[in-house]
Amino acid sequence: MSATLPHRLVEYCDLAKSLQVDAVILVPGSNFTRVVLHPFMSHERPFLLAACADGRTAAIVPNLELLSWSHVGFDGPVFDWRDQTGYADAFAKFMDYLNATRIAVEGQVMRVFVYHAMKNTAPNVEIIDAEHDISGLRMIKTDADLAAMAKAIDVSERALTATLDQIKIGMTEKHIEQILTQQIFAQGAQDHAFRPIVATGANSAMPHAKAGETPIRAGDALLFDFGARCDGFCADITRTVFIDHAPDESAEVYATVLAANQMGHKVARAGVTAHDIDDAVTGVLEQSPFAAYIRTKTGHGLGRDVHEAPYVMRGNHMVLPAGTVFTNEPGLYIQGKLGVRIEDDVVITETGSRSLTTFPTELMVIPC
Amino acid sequence: MSATLPHRLVEYCDLAKSLQVDAVILVPGSNFTRVVLHPFMSHERPFLLAACADGRTAAIVPNLELLSWSHVGFDGPVFDWRDQTGYADAFAKFMDYLNATRIAVEGQVMRVFVYHAMKNTAPNVEIIDAEHDISGLRMIKTDADLAAMAKAIDVSERALTATLDQIKIGMTEKHIEQILTQQIFAQGAQDHAFRPIVATGANSAMPHAKAGETPIRAGDALLFDFGARCDGFCADITRTVFIDHAPDESAEVYATVLAANQMGHKVARAGVTAHDIDDAVTGVLEQSPFAAYIRTKTGHGLGRDVHEAPYVMRGNHMVLPAGTVFTNEPGLYIQGKLGVRIEDDVVITETGSRSLTTFPTELMVIPC
Repeated sequence: MSATLPHRLVEYCDLAKSLQVDAVILVPGSNFTRVVLHPFMSHERPFLLAACADGRTAAIVPNLELLSWSHVGFDGPVFDWRDQTGYADAFAKFMDYLNATRIAVEGQVMRVFVYHAMKNTAPNVEIIDAEHDISGLRMIKTDADLAAMAKAIDVSERALTATLDQIKIGMTEKHIEQILTQQIFAQGAQDHAFRPIVATGANSAMPHAKAGETPIRAGDALLFDFGARCDGFCADITRTVFIDHAPDESAEVYATVLAANQMGHKVARAGVTAHDIDDAVTGVLEQSPFAAYIRTKTGHGLGRDVHEAPYVMRGNHMVLPAGTVFTNEPGLYIQGKLGVRIEDDVVITETGSRSLTTFPTELMVIPC
Repeated sequence: MSATLPHRLVEYCDLAKSLQVDAVILVPGSNFTRVVLHPFMSHERPFLLAACADGRTAAIVPNLELLSWSHVGFDGPVFDWRDQTGYADAFAKFMDYLNATRIAVEGQVMRVFVYHAMKNTAPNVEIIDAEHDISGLRMIKTDADLAAMAKAIDVSERALTATLDQIKIGMTEKHIEQILTQQIFAQGAQDHAFRPIVATGANSAMPHAKAGETPIRAGDALLFDFGARCDGFCADITRTVFIDHAPDESAEVYATVLAANQMGHKVARAGVTAHDIDDAVTGVLEQSPFAAYIRTKTGHGLGRDVHEAPYVMRGNHMVLPAGTVFTNEPGLYIQGKLGVRIEDDVVITETGSRSLTTFPTELMVIPC
């Protein structure tokens, strides 16, 4: 049994206390969903949930969501508002109830119109960005979180296998993206974790390429970066395969990236820092003949959001506890020519790390 | 041929002038995509595009996006930054270049961490929310926009037909949602426009219900609210069907909602206001025996975003020009019992309106 909503809000009240703010305010997004267990949409309607340092809670709810809201088990005061009359009055009552001088918000989630609505109502309130601390509460994954991620990864890997079975020389990136997308859903995804990247030839050198009309040709790399979402959690997997054959230089680049990826699996363990992991992984690339083609950090946390804490890069000296999930995704990007990235989803354990992704990482040539 | 990026930015420079601000700043989202014609992701990395009243332009671009950015045809100064060193320096140079005292932003798109980054760099700059005006530039759809929407709607309607063919008494909402999702992608969608709503029985009375374990039973309503995204544009369609048979009261509720929907098609025409349309549509519901069950406005604009201007509700006296697309989606929601919504996507013309959705709206009973 999951705890009731008031129980789940207690840790946000405690966080407000430790941040020395009067309230932590959540808006629809991954933290909000974690608390209310219902994926409310955001769009143009303000929808806020407050957890106060003194243990009180309150919410602003769009009127048309009231019935859905009645099922989430919230027991604090609710200030609802209708499209026709606007939300100024709901904000006035909400801010009056909070009676706050300092408020912490999720800076990566809350949008400026909500920020302005709070400031217009209470011009003297100080609003601080506590994204790092608020979303940080999601960093250590529970067994249920890990089970959802394992499911999303299984769906994703089966979709990739089914896609690779169908590709033929001359197909365009867009066509292959379409096959992959259909397979992601055919295998049981609820949603994409993000719009897939399917990039071949020189396009693979763009870390966030968009599938276009470029056809796959013998000897080219074909990079897939994609993931399913299941039970609210994301997979995020990259594999780079070669069409018909891998030219020698491509194979060398691939072997270098794979060595870096393997280093990531090896050094991850409870107690190391995000800096340590990136330093070891990027170090492998730097020691290679391809050091000039490094463009990205090792990776990022993964969970309800496809990018979340911890950011695995030099300079981030956060110590990583067991239960942290991060993407181990070193890459090399030779502009105009070739990009290779190998991305696994890794959970940190007390004694080392465990890869949630199991799709082979050895150089794969697709006969077509 | 589409105009080059500098040309597409001219109207935002002109908007800055008319808003009496020094610059309009866009961040990844629908307006940004409309300008750069590439769906850049946002996530945790600030990425900004400025169009100044004096015609200058500038951008802050995450370093790993520079290669993708080089393809968009932007000719202004670009301030890039790397994860490892952070974005403070890029903001300092960008704000210094803009030399602005007033800036207009998209309040529904820009998040607080970007707002804070601008304010931290230039504490005296005034940042105003010009969402309405900036996104308003997308309100009148071009022929290409309408063609993309027609495609998204065609995909959606074929997916609904294929889904209805497969449903059987006893299937759960979740199972039916899964079938619908797979069909949306099998028919050629690039993405969902939003997570589909599949709600039966009493759940249909929640405007934004989430599919659960409730099975469909004879005599129950089954409400689908969903849409494909194609070429960057959204469909948004609702149909409410009945399983095996429609009880008398349900049929009366349905007939009332259908009359309201038909009123929406009838009154829409270039020159009427959003208020006028909602007043006529909601008026039909208010004159019925079911007036107590009105919970929502008539609808919203539709395009690159699933909710955008104009919001079709009483009190919004915006005059609607030809080329505006809105959702005509009256509904009645009897808590604990039944919800009926019928939603069409409608384009306003000089002489009236044209429904982009063609799926029948007559009461439909699904034999299972």
